[in-house]
Amino acid sequence: MSPGSRIAVDAMGGDEGLAVMLAGVARARRQFDGMRFILVGDESAIRAGLETHPHLTAASDIVHAPEVVASDTKPSQALRRAKTTSMGVAIDLVKRGEAAAAVSSGNTGALMAMAKLSLRTMPGIDRPALAALMPSLGDTDTVMLDLGANTECDAQNLVQFAVMGAAYARTILDLESPRVALLNIGTEDMKGTDIVRDAAAQLRGASHLPLRFEGFIEGNRLSRGDVDVIVCDGFSGNIALKTAEGTARFVADLLRRAFQSSIRSKIGFLISRPATQLLRDHLDPNNHNGAVFLGLNGLVVKSHGGANEVGVAHAIAVAAKMVRDDLTRRITEDLSNFEAQAA
Amino acid sequence: MSPGSRIAVDAMGGDEGLAVMLAGVARARRQFDGMRFILVGDESAIRAGLETHPHLTAASDIVHAPEVVASDTKPSQALRRAKTTSMGVAIDLVKRGEAAAAVSSGNTGALMAMAKLSLRTMPGIDRPALAALMPSLGDTDTVMLDLGANTECDAQNLVQFAVMGAAYARTILDLESPRVALLNIGTEDMKGTDIVRDAAAQLRGASHLPLRFEGFIEGNRLSRGDVDVIVCDGFSGNIALKTAEGTARFVADLLRRAFQSSIRSKIGFLISRPATQLLRDHLDPNNHNGAVFLGLNGLVVKSHGGANEVGVAHAIAVAAKMVRDDLTRRITEDLSNFEAQAA
Repeated sequence: MSPGSRIAVDAMGGDEGLAVMLAGVARARRQFDGMRFILVGDESAIRAGLETHPHLTAASDIVHAPEVVASDTKPSQALRRAKTTSMGVAIDLVKRGEAAAAVSSGNTGALMAMAKLSLRTMPGIDRPALAALMPSLGDTDTVMLDLGANTECDAQNLVQFAVMGAAYARTILDLESPRVALLNIGTEDMKGTDIVRDAAAQLRGASHLPLRFEGFIEGNRLSRGDVDVIVCDGFSGNIALKTAEGTARFVADLLRRAFQSSIRSKIGFLISRPATQLLRDHLDPNNHNGAVFLGLNGLVVKSHGGANEVGVAHAIAVAAKMVRDDLTRRITEDLSNFEAQAA
Repeated sequence: MSPGSRIAVDAMGGDEGLAVMLAGVARARRQFDGMRFILVGDESAIRAGLETHPHLTAASDIVHAPEVVASDTKPSQALRRAKTTSMGVAIDLVKRGEAAAAVSSGNTGALMAMAKLSLRTMPGIDRPALAALMPSLGDTDTVMLDLGANTECDAQNLVQFAVMGAAYARTILDLESPRVALLNIGTEDMKGTDIVRDAAAQLRGASHLPLRFEGFIEGNRLSRGDVDVIVCDGFSGNIALKTAEGTARFVADLLRRAFQSSIRSKIGFLISRPATQLLRDHLDPNNHNGAVFLGLNGLVVKSHGGANEVGVAHAIAVAAKMVRDDLTRRITEDLSNFEAQAA
């Protein structure tokens, strides 16, 4: 990232508290040399928390914000406190150009509402969407959006998510014409809601877009690597994402039970431990933490509310890489190029 | 099951063809002594397929149906061919009391439409829902519905699914007051769509119902055993179910890769193979195949379109157990008892 660019961190958001946020930022700092931070929140609490992090202290500025957005705050309530909450102030630093990105582990709905109001959406985009890279059996990760920012979506929203997701995949995964599919409950044309069918019809007809529309994809093929971008409304996307996380943990728990079921399997477990440990790391959601709001004139990364130190560090690394790659400018250019071609 | 009761099998539905259906029925017959079948479909093809299954031949009658419901047939089209398709004829045998249950691996939407029109819903129930038992870390399996029969649902539908799901859990899992939760994208009251929030408000107020309403549950806790019944619309339920299946397979694939990554881990794998084999069996969707339509005046079981012989046998076993337990009568009584108490 360019010298002097800073990442604003909502130090107060999330379920795990200030100490975990600071430990996560400190860990990210060790990975990204020369990165600087603006820690936003209760100034005296942050100063006290920083006492055990001398290197982070040297790499950080503190901006005081007296209030915190609680996990059960409605977006409309949060908007009224944009100027006084750690989340709102962190986003405002991006708007004013003082930070290159903002990272928060707070309430998704509030973050979405504040980021949209403050940073505004890109030309041609009605609503931002929350996108993340999911592990897959393919050569690259898979982009999935929306993961919970928009509980209900119309066909036009889904088409815009497809365009933004493809632009993201071109930028981050370096794919010329990403394969895009809509999440649905079957692959036949007549399956699903009117909304997904309408979105599919629009995408099939939009041959000028720099993507290959592959039709519908079902939940059982999300991680097969068949497509590069999976598009859905925020309700089903959030359910799919969390179900995948929960199932991975469920299988790991069953595996642990299986390995403990006999002396023989315990011995086998000890021998193959390096391999199973690799798998455990690969599946740990903290190692995939950090979803980005696509479609905004500025970078905002959502970290999972329950992320641990490793998870917070990963979300900050996601933000740092996008700052380094100048993602917002590149996606904006990409979208306007194709709008110009289509015109 | 009572002597003489028979299960009607749509021998033609499903992606795997007649041979797999017949092999599955033959396998189920070996598990359930004295069970009899009505095999519905192309008579000469069924006769030819039965040549390698003498015991099944002795336990079966054949009812001819000239047509098959294709996987891309719309429900409205299927309804017009209810009298001539293997699926429609199998359901009609239940309606006329000639079979105690029908099992089909065909198109879910068509099966739902035909079953609803032919068997009608129970008093007080507007729409049937597809329910299945999901493996969990708890003491018992978890009932989940709807899994894809109703793409869109209103709050009233979800409340009825909760009541039917609880009745099913009382009957099948022998629980007096099952814990019921609504699938949502957060646990706070303000999360989700108006529809799930409205359903939650109704369930919170319905203290006369023989269930404990536990509020919202997120996708990452579906298999933790925290609740006994998980209620959702068919779109998100189908996505959650298939995502769970796909993720379990994804983890198993990664585990295989991990075990093959070094000589050391290959040896560990060979030693612990009996344990990992048990886990593989436990997670194989074929061993959980067979979802039941709740809320109909008759038993109809949906088998997965891609089920193998083991899966088909499992779906038939699900039907056989419900016939034996007289499920439809017991759920009807349960629902009317509580309606009487509420009145």
